[in-house]
Amino acid sequence: MNLDEPMTDPLDRSRFPVDPWALREVSYSKSDLGTTETLFTVGNGYLGMRGNPEEGRDAHTHGTFVNGFHETWAIRHAEEAYGFARTGQTIVNAPDAKVMKLYVDDEPLLLATADLEEYERVLDFKEGVLRREVVWRTPSGKRVRISSKRMVSFTQRHLAIMQIQVTMLEGDAPVVISSQILNRQDGRDEYNIPEHAMGKHFDPRKASNFEGRVLEPKLNWYSDRRMILGYRATNSGMTLAVGADHAISTDNEYEQLNSSDDDYAKKVYRVHAHEGRPITITKVASYHSSRGVPVRELVDRVRRTLDRVRDHGVEHYEQEQRDWLADFWAASDVEIEGQPATQQAVRWNLFQLAQASARSDQLGVAAKGVSGTGYEGHYFWDSEVYVMPFLTYTSPYLARNLLRFRWNMLPAARERADELSQRGALFPWRTINGEEASAYYAAGTAQYHIDADIAYALVKYGWATGDADFLVRQGVDILVETARMFADLGFWRNNGERSFHIHGVTGPDEYTAVVNNNLFTNVMARFNLEQAALQVESIKATDPASYVKLVKRLRLGEDEPAEWHDAARRMTIPYDEALEIHPQDEHFLDREMWDLSATPEENKPLLLHFHPLVIYRFQVLKQADVVLAMFLQGDQFTLEQKRANFEYYDPITTGDSTLSAVVQSIIAAEVGYHDMALDYFMKGLYVDLADLHGNTSDGVHVASTGGVWSALAYGFGGMRDYDGHVTFDPRLPTGWESLRFRITLKGARLEVTLRQGSIEFRVDGGDVEVGVRGQRHYIRPHEPVRVQLDGQGDRIDGILGTSPLIGGRRSDGTVITAGVPEPPSEPVPVTPS
Amino acid sequence: MNLDEPMTDPLDRSRFPVDPWALREVSYSKSDLGTTETLFTVGNGYLGMRGNPEEGRDAHTHGTFVNGFHETWAIRHAEEAYGFARTGQTIVNAPDAKVMKLYVDDEPLLLATADLEEYERVLDFKEGVLRREVVWRTPSGKRVRISSKRMVSFTQRHLAIMQIQVTMLEGDAPVVISSQILNRQDGRDEYNIPEHAMGKHFDPRKASNFEGRVLEPKLNWYSDRRMILGYRATNSGMTLAVGADHAISTDNEYEQLNSSDDDYAKKVYRVHAHEGRPITITKVASYHSSRGVPVRELVDRVRRTLDRVRDHGVEHYEQEQRDWLADFWAASDVEIEGQPATQQAVRWNLFQLAQASARSDQLGVAAKGVSGTGYEGHYFWDSEVYVMPFLTYTSPYLARNLLRFRWNMLPAARERADELSQRGALFPWRTINGEEASAYYAAGTAQYHIDADIAYALVKYGWATGDADFLVRQGVDILVETARMFADLGFWRNNGERSFHIHGVTGPDEYTAVVNNNLFTNVMARFNLEQAALQVESIKATDPASYVKLVKRLRLGEDEPAEWHDAARRMTIPYDEALEIHPQDEHFLDREMWDLSATPEENKPLLLHFHPLVIYRFQVLKQADVVLAMFLQGDQFTLEQKRANFEYYDPITTGDSTLSAVVQSIIAAEVGYHDMALDYFMKGLYVDLADLHGNTSDGVHVASTGGVWSALAYGFGGMRDYDGHVTFDPRLPTGWESLRFRITLKGARLEVTLRQGSIEFRVDGGDVEVGVRGQRHYIRPHEPVRVQLDGQGDRIDGILGTSPLIGGRRSDGTVITAGVPEPPSEPVPVTPS
Repeated sequence: MNLDEPMTDPLDRSRFPVDPWALREVSYSKSDLGTTETLFTVGNGYLGMRGNPEEGRDAHTHGTFVNGFHETWAIRHAEEAYGFARTGQTIVNAPDAKVMKLYVDDEPLLLATADLEEYERVLDFKEGVLRREVVWRTPSGKRVRISSKRMVSFTQRHLAIMQIQVTMLEGDAPVVISSQILNRQDGRDEYNIPEHAMGKHFDPRKASNFEGRVLEPKLNWYSDRRMILGYRATNSGMTLAVGADHAISTDNEYEQLNSSDDDYAKKVYRVHAHEGRPITITKVASYHSSRGVPVRELVDRVRRTLDRVRDHGVEHYEQEQRDWLADFWAASDVEIEGQPATQQAVRWNLFQLAQASARSDQLGVAAKGVSGTGYEGHYFWDSEVYVMPFLTYTSPYLARNLLRFRWNMLPAARERADELSQRGALFPWRTINGEEASAYYAAGTAQYHIDADIAYALVKYGWATGDADFLVRQGVDILVETARMFADLGFWRNNGERSFHIHGVTGPDEYTAVVNNNLFTNVMARFNLEQAALQVESIKATDPASYVKLVKRLRLGEDEPAEWHDAARRMTIPYDEALEIHPQDEHFLDREMWDLSATPEENKPLLLHFHPLVIYRFQVLKQADVVLAMFLQGDQFTLEQKRANFEYYDPITTGDSTLSAVVQSIIAAEVGYHDMALDYFMKGLYVDLADLHGNTSDGVHVASTGGVWSALAYGFGGMRDYDGHVTFDPRLPTGWESLRFRITLKGARLEVTLRQGSIEFRVDGGDVEVGVRGQRHYIRPHEPVRVQLDGQGDRIDGILGTSPLIGGRRSDGTVITAGVPEPPSEPVPVTPS
Repeated sequence: MNLDEPMTDPLDRSRFPVDPWALREVSYSKSDLGTTETLFTVGNGYLGMRGNPEEGRDAHTHGTFVNGFHETWAIRHAEEAYGFARTGQTIVNAPDAKVMKLYVDDEPLLLATADLEEYERVLDFKEGVLRREVVWRTPSGKRVRISSKRMVSFTQRHLAIMQIQVTMLEGDAPVVISSQILNRQDGRDEYNIPEHAMGKHFDPRKASNFEGRVLEPKLNWYSDRRMILGYRATNSGMTLAVGADHAISTDNEYEQLNSSDDDYAKKVYRVHAHEGRPITITKVASYHSSRGVPVRELVDRVRRTLDRVRDHGVEHYEQEQRDWLADFWAASDVEIEGQPATQQAVRWNLFQLAQASARSDQLGVAAKGVSGTGYEGHYFWDSEVYVMPFLTYTSPYLARNLLRFRWNMLPAARERADELSQRGALFPWRTINGEEASAYYAAGTAQYHIDADIAYALVKYGWATGDADFLVRQGVDILVETARMFADLGFWRNNGERSFHIHGVTGPDEYTAVVNNNLFTNVMARFNLEQAALQVESIKATDPASYVKLVKRLRLGEDEPAEWHDAARRMTIPYDEALEIHPQDEHFLDREMWDLSATPEENKPLLLHFHPLVIYRFQVLKQADVVLAMFLQGDQFTLEQKRANFEYYDPITTGDSTLSAVVQSIIAAEVGYHDMALDYFMKGLYVDLADLHGNTSDGVHVASTGGVWSALAYGFGGMRDYDGHVTFDPRLPTGWESLRFRITLKGARLEVTLRQGSIEFRVDGGDVEVGVRGQRHYIRPHEPVRVQLDGQGDRIDGILGTSPLIGGRRSDGTVITAGVPEPPSEPVPVTPS
């Protein structure tokens, strides 16, 4: 990390002015269409519409996504092996109901070339609406005001509402508005170039594509106010129906034309527009999807949604939207006094969490939410490790939904474990339908830690919510089956002392693969095994009836919990006595050191410029691994260990994954690297807003948005939740006046306000016990508690070098040497090619 | 290994009677068509024709192969990464000129259903001809004798000669013979089912297939006696022309019809056949191929080949064939007195070596030679490690061709090294055109030892032949570039003592992958580095002019040889002091033990029933790895080490690869397990003849045929060639009277006759020095030397168990414990699923 150039607000504020409650764009640019389409996406976790303009033209990707609506395809491995993933799963670009093309004097509005006298686009975090205001001077010199808005409802998951208002400001003109539903997936302008046709240019983070027609048209229909299209995905058999109602309000004369075919439904208004007489067209759209219900049935559901809006009026749903968001912010807002730019960016990130998860209901939260096709719409561990903390502490019912989503996936996970010759259940590394879709096992299936990540999120959820019912009835199944998997995956060695080993796995850091005793995997598996045993023992002791059911349901052996305890207690935890650090895996320190300072910028990220075999041979990290373990299992490490580990790994961590910065920030804060903590936080905060990884066009990095919340609450807020006790050891950044956030604990809402000299708690809805730097405090409603703070923890003002070979320097002038296992024998270990 | 059921002659001798100079089949069976097609293949290393019947009907695979004639296709990785192989290469099924369909009374001859009064098929090892003799009672009750023969010329690589003779034995009949050239690759009856459409049934050892048309027709032409077809492979651009001349000899009246189209050329003889008047049709075919020469030019070459045969007559070429084979056997024959069945099988194996390599000229020798599509026609290390010893010592000019083939591939290997961020050259693990075609890098590209294997074969060739010219002009380039690769691939550590380490590689055993300090790789790399340095130093000292050219040609640094010496001397050689064995890799002994005795037979071979991640986690071997190193680098291990290593690894070696048994045999013989040595030899000897691995239908296991020779010469013959000195420490199997083989040393031919009490040498064409158990002997022409032998080395009569966990037992009753690192903690480590 180079703090010579610390990260500051990177946005061009002349184009994106600061607004604490909205993302606002005041001039149009074609240069970053992909990014802004992602940033201005509206969605509710079920339905997402990218920020394409109503006119539907210049675009990076016209995107409309329905969570889980995917097509499958046969993976063709160039060389096969037993157990390789066979079925590819890719999110489908759903038919686009956003389009409302505009013609004045038969000239189409094209933002890229239009003469725009005014332009503003606003994503409003309180209203949950995307608004655009344009004044266009047409080629014939007439001025037209176009106001539009777009909303995907948080309360009605199948509903989107759009409106366009066109007013001639000077003179009359014929105005045509063509409102459409367009199947872009199979349409001409949506054909993508397959990866393999792209020669040596590729990016494995992008989605692969289909070869033939994806959506079989099953129905197209229209009436005077309504149009509906219905489809069935060719291979997956999933079905989808989309419909739209239209209403026009104007004093001008107009006529309407309707039509539809397989890939296209259209309603055209031809209006004789007079100066000053607005034309307002409201379009209400509804999407319904299913794993296999006939299209005809989905069409009925679409009709019911549309009829309901017709009956209640759109204003009703706009009010519901505001109310829902008021509740959301009351539970989830994080306030940073005196930092309006940061405040705005924080709220954008939190708003994305709502947009990705609010109505995912019992679907998963994809890596890109419903904002893009990146990672093919797959669900990863991102949900459990990056998104779940936020949901658990701000919207526990959403956290519960996500856990139930995994519980529903158990049968597939059991099958997969069997295929991998393991007992219990093995969750897929990436999936939509529950089957493993990771075709590169070394960085996929080998990440067995996914099981422990899910178990971890479940246990934390239980502690935070006290939701015993869910745990006893269903959650325990996950704990038992994942513990079984680890107990079977590992094996015993007896070199004087019995020890439990887990071989041939990949940890979160994908720049090493298929290693023995990966520290992260082992500490997480230990937790998983221990908690499964404790949970079973607890049910046995307190709820005999449920225990009997449990034994029967899972064929639970009498001895299993004891086995899990044993494996957990004897789990191998790699530790290097000489360096006083935890190796990332048993043999990590044997590797050659990669000198990042000698790697030219054009060869980054490494994964796009070096063969995996080369990368795997070195000590170099894509993302936090030991450091993440020290966050999630922080009570298993001393502060000294954390600092030594952080100082060792930070300089060899590339951060090529967006999952890295937020975690580095949390541990940097804990161990005293305050400046680095803030810098990493900023790098996480602006991942998408400033397109720091160059691929925001593929969709929002949802895990990073969750990590932003974690960096605020856990990092600066110093919150920890080991063993179900919530404690605080704050690290407020130097320049910040205050930080306020809310967490929900067993139904009570706790407001935490952190200042440089104090931390203050208010609670609503119940009592809460918290710890602050070793002291316990009981917080009761209407009795705020303020605890004085003697500073924000130890400070190390120095920086860490870009490689342990070079050595960082602490503020006291001592050189950090932990990362230097041997003198360098070759100046440049890798020939950059 | 279970010696309760030692391997004996497994052939059904009522169908395949013993014949020391031929493979003979006396009754037809449809049950093993794929196997017998392979066994009766005729080929010359350039052109191969599977043993399909002339009638061209019932077949497993109609196959005609031209070495190196391949199509390319874009590999589509389900998940991409930098440097992954991009171009698939697959041997093409060349147009089939074998077909001569026969109709009597308009009834086609169909062997599967025909009433055959006589049937014999013979592959004659002395004549190099496949003959068939059939008496067919037609459905109308007439008896017809059909004699046919087929030959692919060893002296004219582009030439095949076929003949069919039909004689009505009782009564007259209309006889139709339709002689064809048929493009089966794109034809209807040759469409294959793509792997990925086969669901969970797959075999990664089989070739993948094409999606569209492979051969673009460029020309079809016929005259009264001749027909020619010309093609261009769609993607690779390779071109091929095939033509055939016909002659008929008969006293019967007949008429002829000719035709041709894109995929088909045909000459039909309609004969009014009278009883006792034979019809003889001779078909002379020629294939020419090229990387890109226009088809028209290839057609001219076909014409020239055919014209030459027309001028000289087919008898001339049949005589050439016999002469060539007489020379071949004089140089290569291995005689085993009193073991006619074994003798026959040995000669079949040696004959396959001729058929795979004789006219490969400067193409490679594919894993299946020219006998099938297995492994997609790719060239592997099989050539250098399994085939080259035979060629080096019996046909040095063929060995030289194979080395030149690698030399020609150097530019591509340099590019590949660069792509893998390495200096020097990295040869592809599998290839036809020089580009890496291995899409599964863990068992492909990671086998960096390919470089050392090639260097090894080159050095041995140099020692055996004294061909300094080739070494100095070209061979040294290979040595230098491969040494550079290893010097750059490895790295230095300094833990008190400097040591050189090679990480992240896969050894020959593909049941572990991407490991550190693989013993085989390191000892072979050590040899490579050392020999490269010695060769450069020798040229510098003895041939300054060549040295100057060398420095310029390879930009050789002054210090490079010293660096290679240093790396070689300090190479890490894993050794376990406690077990007194060499671990297969640095962390091999940390792995859990796979209990093969607990693995049901239906779960073998393991690669078809377990995910690689599962297999990689265990101590279990697909094939000899340390054991192979102990053969190739035998002077680097003590006898005690060899025995301990063999006893450790043998029980956990599945032999799922056919490359294993022959090597196990050699080391078993050396360390004293005589019964096991013979048993392994038999398992290698009958790999194809008895279809022991169930996939002989895909083609001959050429490496195993080479291994059979090595097992005879090195194993039983006890020959070694360390440092260029040829020595013998024989191990004649108990039941064998004698073993006689020939080797060519610097132009002199040495005949070695081994008996239970003696070894005898005769030499022709020069003097030879050999060692016998520590004593040097000088052999001169016409002065045979007989050395008395006190037995055949130490004997260990016991067997080894199927797992070190169980423990084998030596003849002295002691249990072999080396393989028991710890008490078993779990009874069955892997759940067979």
